Amino acid sequence: MAGSTDGRVTAAVLIIGDEILSGRTQDTNLRDIARYLGVLGVDLAEARTVPDVQDEIVAALNALRERYDYVITTGGIGPTHDDITADAVAAAFGVELIEHPEILAMMSARWGVELNAARRRMARVPVGGELVKNPVQGPPGFTIGNVFVLAGVPTIMRGMLEDVGWRLRGGAVTVARTVRVEGSGEGVIAAPLEAVAKAHPDMSLGSYPFFGDAGYGSNLVLRSRDPEELARALDELVAALRSAGIDNVREIENA
Amino acid sequence: MAGSTDGRVTAAVLIIGDEILSGRTQDTNLRDIARYLGVLGVDLAEARTVPDVQDEIVAALNALRERYDYVITTGGIGPTHDDITADAVAAAFGVELIEHPEILAMMSARWGVELNAARRRMARVPVGGELVKNPVQGPPGFTIGNVFVLAGVPTIMRGMLEDVGWRLRGGAVTVARTVRVEGSGEGVIAAPLEAVAKAHPDMSLGSYPFFGDAGYGSNLVLRSRDPEELARALDELVAALRSAGIDNVREIENA
Repeated sequence: MAGSTDGRVTAAVLIIGDEILSGRTQDTNLRDIARYLGVLGVDLAEARTVPDVQDEIVAALNALRERYDYVITTGGIGPTHDDITADAVAAAFGVELIEHPEILAMMSARWGVELNAARRRMARVPVGGELVKNPVQGPPGFTIGNVFVLAGVPTIMRGMLEDVGWRLRGGAVTVARTVRVEGSGEGVIAAPLEAVAKAHPDMSLGSYPFFGDAGYGSNLVLRSRDPEELARALDELVAALRSAGIDNVREIENA
Repeated sequence: MAGSTDGRVTAAVLIIGDEILSGRTQDTNLRDIARYLGVLGVDLAEARTVPDVQDEIVAALNALRERYDYVITTGGIGPTHDDITADAVAAAFGVELIEHPEILAMMSARWGVELNAARRRMARVPVGGELVKNPVQGPPGFTIGNVFVLAGVPTIMRGMLEDVGWRLRGGAVTVARTVRVEGSGEGVIAAPLEAVAKAHPDMSLGSYPFFGDAGYGSNLVLRSRDPEELARALDELVAALRSAGIDNVREIENA
């Protein structure tokens, strides 16, 4: 397993599926995984989306699992010919695919004589893999090395995530607080924001502008692993904004 | 510029922003760009999401622009300190950043004496870059080499795309048709689907299951650059499904 040396625990997401790259399907799994990992103190550091092409999946998976502590894949574990994630993961790890006896038993109980070749595809797990429970519907996912292989269907993916979290070494949890500025654009907010960002180089300060019928402004999101530094930086930011003549400023719940 | 040798015209999307990787913001730009490119016959072949870290942006951009015909980036072109996409693109191409006279003139007209240092950041374009019009609000994007640098705000991004399409060498447009199967799961659909996929190796056939209160089944999406082959494959698929005893089958509008 790759490892960070700065105490940060990192993860990448690999989204597998032609339907995302064609624009047919709107991915929401990235956001859901990011939020789930955030609570555990695991930083989502990169995401890639690749088509249902084995060489592409293998290359992306090997790049990501080398570089980050964990990799979570979504998609491509169903019974049809274009579901090739298990094949690609086995190829990436250089191991064989076998029919996992526990999944086969589960499927036999469910399907009986209707357990055909297509359904049996979903019992295939790379040698050395362990199962990831599926509390929703259908066969489980699996994990091998630092890689977790989950379904693409969002409800099933979220269910499987619940059997992933306890296996992760968590880091210090990043906390966010948000300051909302109304009636001022980023062009005037930028200077006081940058001053506070420079005074707190280990923190992340982002500006997310909004505009529309309800007015305009920006949500300034401060993120840190240190709640006390976060509180100080927030006070400094509000003071810096007011010094710059920006008065319509208040803390809000994180958007 | 990279180029495909098989007549396929390819593109990658590079999404830049901590707010996507933290789960704070749900990206929708990937889907919108994919659909826009699809109509032009340009295949979206890969997407990556990276944080607001210059080395990460440079590395991803150089990998993608080498490999695909076009790269479209979203995000990181505002006035705040964390908006570093122009810096990263200049570094990737090994050129200087300059304040573009046309953008400066636009901004001077808009802001007058309020044209401060933060706003001037948005006038910076790598040497050799050309502007991409912004019909919505704020300064333009730019293009250099085979890279298009667009805003992250979805409404602005979509507006800028309209000034991208005419610059792309389009390919043969991929057409999709969808067969909806109700009351049968992928486990029984897989065999007839695979038979048709094997008979049409240049086509893409995907199965996208659905289930819920309204029942279950799968949408089978056939994609091809050749409308006549697509029509033949669709007839063969419907026949193969019916031969397998799957009768609740009909063509629907593409979902």
